[in-house]
Amino acid sequence: MTERIGFIGVGIMGRPMVNNLVKAGYPVTIFDIVHASVEELEKEGVPAAVSSKEVAEKSDVIITMLPEDPHVEAAILGENGVFAGARAGQLVIDMSTISPVVSRKIAEEGQKRELRVLDAPVSGGDKGAIAGTLSIMVGGDAADFEAARRIFEAMGKTIIHCGPHGAGQVVKACNQIVVALTIEAVSEALVLGSKAGVQPDIILEVLGGGLAGNKVMEVRGPNFLNHDFEPGFKIKLHRKDLGIVLATAEEYGVALPVTALVNQMFTTLVNEGQAELDHSALLTHIEKLSRHVVGTTEEA
Amino acid sequence: MTERIGFIGVGIMGRPMVNNLVKAGYPVTIFDIVHASVEELEKEGVPAAVSSKEVAEKSDVIITMLPEDPHVEAAILGENGVFAGARAGQLVIDMSTISPVVSRKIAEEGQKRELRVLDAPVSGGDKGAIAGTLSIMVGGDAADFEAARRIFEAMGKTIIHCGPHGAGQVVKACNQIVVALTIEAVSEALVLGSKAGVQPDIILEVLGGGLAGNKVMEVRGPNFLNHDFEPGFKIKLHRKDLGIVLATAEEYGVALPVTALVNQMFTTLVNEGQAELDHSALLTHIEKLSRHVVGTTEEA
Repeated sequence: MTERIGFIGVGIMGRPMVNNLVKAGYPVTIFDIVHASVEELEKEGVPAAVSSKEVAEKSDVIITMLPEDPHVEAAILGENGVFAGARAGQLVIDMSTISPVVSRKIAEEGQKRELRVLDAPVSGGDKGAIAGTLSIMVGGDAADFEAARRIFEAMGKTIIHCGPHGAGQVVKACNQIVVALTIEAVSEALVLGSKAGVQPDIILEVLGGGLAGNKVMEVRGPNFLNHDFEPGFKIKLHRKDLGIVLATAEEYGVALPVTALVNQMFTTLVNEGQAELDHSALLTHIEKLSRHVVGTTEEA
Repeated sequence: MTERIGFIGVGIMGRPMVNNLVKAGYPVTIFDIVHASVEELEKEGVPAAVSSKEVAEKSDVIITMLPEDPHVEAAILGENGVFAGARAGQLVIDMSTISPVVSRKIAEEGQKRELRVLDAPVSGGDKGAIAGTLSIMVGGDAADFEAARRIFEAMGKTIIHCGPHGAGQVVKACNQIVVALTIEAVSEALVLGSKAGVQPDIILEVLGGGLAGNKVMEVRGPNFLNHDFEPGFKIKLHRKDLGIVLATAEEYGVALPVTALVNQMFTTLVNEGQAELDHSALLTHIEKLSRHVVGTTEEA
């Protein structure tokens, strides 16, 4: 059986995900409150509904891919939302990155209506969405995960069931901690090394060969060296994600001293007008604190 | 020509390094102020001198592998030290991890006596020293580096000329920043994820597949999961190295906010009697702050 898919939120991430679902043979109906986003896909022949509710009525599986908590709550729980149009037994998959607490609330509301709900945030950015190579972290019942597996495989490569409702969001939060702190680690190393007179490319080469090795240096190494901060993954989005991390930590009584500090650095960068740069531009914050531009003898 | 090597400092690191030099066919003369360390190698037939000065007199190339700045200064610059016995043109290689500032001072003193000096700190720990797979980061003249290459190859695998005098120490400092901050990143992620209800092995599995991937999770993953903190690399040694990092940062006017914070955490662990544990035990600090033992429902 090829399920009819309803897809709500067709922005930078959602649109290529819809393209990949269509390519995989799924009939897709879309909705977005931003009309321009809908039109792009309509031109390519993808039909649009007038509300999230109508998307649910016309589909077997509903996927949401939206920016933040309130958008997801409105699209799923709102008056003209998914739950208003959904039928018992239907699968609702939220692929947005939001708070695990909100994810669990949505799952509970869904269960009251006999709906099957999964949280399935992704990593890999718009490039991964276009290439169909996203990592998808899924929370919810194992049987529902298995039922959705073929759909996930149309959009991603690494697809892992992380645990019960909210577990996908929790693992995504963990991921965003490690990525942010790794960027900070590389930044502090490069600024110290460069200001103390060593070529930054040599630092990356040596560190890459040992216990200091990491994917951030591997993938973003040239960005650090060339101060090329084209996104990639924007500072404002990583800051949003660290906001979710810290709210979740608050909820569970977890102390994250370094994550909190790096979040403050992202806030400073946003205040300085750098919100749209790639998150690797965290380097420029340490450069400014140290009045040194890596790879030069200039003051930052 | 097979150079006669003098080796000063035959502790946990130095001793297996000497073994590998002997295996590679070098005649080695040793010295250490700790007599027990000397005796171990003497039993294996390695001759010992009575001072660093005598080591220099009996050798073509002198290597030092000592714990901290003062030991290196005493062994090289002291009254009965290497420089007191060395001849013009001789190669002096300090493989200790010390301050780049001290390394440069030694190089300058050496140049006054027409000696050729290299700083060549290592990473890879005692395991790497035994296996002959150390990473060796070398600062000094390129010609001297090339002259020493075959000797380095007897002890290490990744051997890189990092720049002028002190550059080896600077890159080692960069390495210790990234390793410490990566351990902290993984610790914060695991404590949040586990207290929020996700199995820690799943967190490591998912994060390992994406931009969050790093060598610390790969190599020390089981240590985090099993709370197995057998060293490895001891907290007290990593704290010593971060002390060098922060003193170097001070010297060059570099601000390292997160390195400074993680150094404070290592200090707390030392105060709590954890100095001899592997540095991955940084996890236990975040566990205590958050009153949660990763992978359990217990309070830390």
